[in-house]
Amino acid sequence: MTLAEPPTPSALVDLGLLLRNADRMRAVAAGAGVVLRPHVKTHKSPRIARIQHAGRPGPITVSTLAEAEAFAAAGFEDITYAVPIEPGKIVRALLLCRKIRLTLDLDGPEAAGALACAAAKESLRVPVLLEVDCGDHRCGVEPESAESVELARRVADSSGLDFRGLLTHAGHSYAATSKESVRRIAGEERTAVVSLAERLRAGGLEVSTVSVGSTPTMTHFESLDGVTEIRPGNYVFFDAFQASHGSCAWEDCAMTVLSAVVHRSEERIVLDAGAIALSKDEGPRDLDPSCGFGRVLDLEGSDTGLRISKLTQEHGEVALPSGFDASRFPPGARVRILPNHSCLTAAQHAEYLVLEGGEIVDRWPTIRGW
Amino acid sequence: MTLAEPPTPSALVDLGLLLRNADRMRAVAAGAGVVLRPHVKTHKSPRIARIQHAGRPGPITVSTLAEAEAFAAAGFEDITYAVPIEPGKIVRALLLCRKIRLTLDLDGPEAAGALACAAAKESLRVPVLLEVDCGDHRCGVEPESAESVELARRVADSSGLDFRGLLTHAGHSYAATSKESVRRIAGEERTAVVSLAERLRAGGLEVSTVSVGSTPTMTHFESLDGVTEIRPGNYVFFDAFQASHGSCAWEDCAMTVLSAVVHRSEERIVLDAGAIALSKDEGPRDLDPSCGFGRVLDLEGSDTGLRISKLTQEHGEVALPSGFDASRFPPGARVRILPNHSCLTAAQHAEYLVLEGGEIVDRWPTIRGW
Repeated sequence: MTLAEPPTPSALVDLGLLLRNADRMRAVAAGAGVVLRPHVKTHKSPRIARIQHAGRPGPITVSTLAEAEAFAAAGFEDITYAVPIEPGKIVRALLLCRKIRLTLDLDGPEAAGALACAAAKESLRVPVLLEVDCGDHRCGVEPESAESVELARRVADSSGLDFRGLLTHAGHSYAATSKESVRRIAGEERTAVVSLAERLRAGGLEVSTVSVGSTPTMTHFESLDGVTEIRPGNYVFFDAFQASHGSCAWEDCAMTVLSAVVHRSEERIVLDAGAIALSKDEGPRDLDPSCGFGRVLDLEGSDTGLRISKLTQEHGEVALPSGFDASRFPPGARVRILPNHSCLTAAQHAEYLVLEGGEIVDRWPTIRGW
Repeated sequence: MTLAEPPTPSALVDLGLLLRNADRMRAVAAGAGVVLRPHVKTHKSPRIARIQHAGRPGPITVSTLAEAEAFAAAGFEDITYAVPIEPGKIVRALLLCRKIRLTLDLDGPEAAGALACAAAKESLRVPVLLEVDCGDHRCGVEPESAESVELARRVADSSGLDFRGLLTHAGHSYAATSKESVRRIAGEERTAVVSLAERLRAGGLEVSTVSVGSTPTMTHFESLDGVTEIRPGNYVFFDAFQASHGSCAWEDCAMTVLSAVVHRSEERIVLDAGAIALSKDEGPRDLDPSCGFGRVLDLEGSDTGLRISKLTQEHGEVALPSGFDASRFPPGARVRILPNHSCLTAAQHAEYLVLEGGEIVDRWPTIRGW
């Protein structure tokens, strides 16, 4: 099947680029001597997670229990759920803990107490990582605080919990606008967990896992000394944000949305990929104020120079620069849209059409919901 | 089941408010003597569409062929697909035209030619509306142009097409910041199609359908003279955008997202409803610069005063005003989030939990994809 045939809008994954992106990050991890535990929230596809591990169901990171359950059912047996577990999700998480190695994330005493109690009642010993705030200021304990040491000790002392170590995520690296600042943030990300791990070890705790990772910091780090695993996710697809911010080249971007023109005038073309098909992520506006809601590529993947200027539910509007020859874009013409944020765009689709040599060679379903 | 029990995040629909919103718009249509053809893209639920028609599968508007197919399968037999049909969707649309009354939307000669040809080949006579641009400048023909009359005539002269009339959508009413400007736009919306309908009739064409409608304009119009049907959609749920813009009261908003606290510090709470569960619609920022990505309500639906300040994939961050007492929001505490744009938020969920008297009394699945 060529790109003229599938229904639009559809999510496309370029197999060659996907393999290359996966290989590169596997080489980064091997070179640094750390475990690669990719964050599968980016693609939500067991097929792609296997590609990230050269065909095997290796260790992965998830952002929802629905992902954990579906990947477990697809053969993945070592999963870290990298969002602080809240009491309402404990019963469901423990069900899965009986089947696979599901490592949970804690960053406060309330959830730690509830989890320890529930695990002990079920005679389980649940592997736990303490989430550390390395500067993102979303979740996590302050690495320099007395509370962080206290919480680690409390977890280690709980019969229902198995304290495995520390986890952090430098989400603030997404706001960095130069390689130098990403490199600095990667340093802070590493230091936050490595130095806390050292303090905990000095206090007699065993810290097996020291986990970091975001796609920007795993592209530009200087050192991973003391780190045991990395959890990048976006790198397998990349997107307009990552390319603008220097985490990849434009030609590394592996996920696009196939779309058809529904309307053409002198001022604009309108595509059938709107806010649902693309997501309304505002992209790299800080570096590229005219980025719009995505780049319009031709079917071969080359930039047409056009940008999605406005999104409504099922319409993607493309304002045409004055004098632009839109004769190639009559109603029914097809384009590919390079999204601003591939994780959010991918989550809008129930499957990927897998593209190789200009042909659709496979369809891979995704996991949705919570 | 109370709100303490369902998994989070989940989409909630308040049944009493839904019924009241549905009743009101049905009364508006009856009062104006026009057909109500609600746009079901807002909710994508056959159950809700029946409520909009007091229990019957009445006429509806859809934004995708997937919606058309699913609603047809659920008993709806009079459906208008209100996006210009593009050549790649004709075969699929004609399959459905054999089963139900599916009215298609055209706004240019290319698609009109392709549709006429395909319909004639299948010995079908497909009902068609001409989409008119009343100022939204997205799709549609210029109502005053010679081309609009020419296209209507061409459709009317095609043996495969049944020219039914005109359709327009004042999407630009969403940008209006006062009732007066919405009223003015409602007037332009009506005039654009009514005056073109008169010109076409003067030229000997029959124009049975004159269709307008957006939730803002259907709330504030002065006259619907000459209009035969209205297609509002959002009114059944409303949202923070519509309440800020005066299309409804805050207490009319019927759709919220149930969410749990996963992290609490002095500076913020973090919820398990992120960019996927809520969508990244920026909401009524023009009128309410601090609206964030949604209002945090308590479980009874009262505003806590908190706003979603930042969204990442599965995290909704709420910056706490200094001195705010967050003791009610420990990890595991539950809140409801009133979304900025209910259509986009609803599209993120596979079902609604139906809320009545503080209890979940039903679950209604939604239709997804294209």
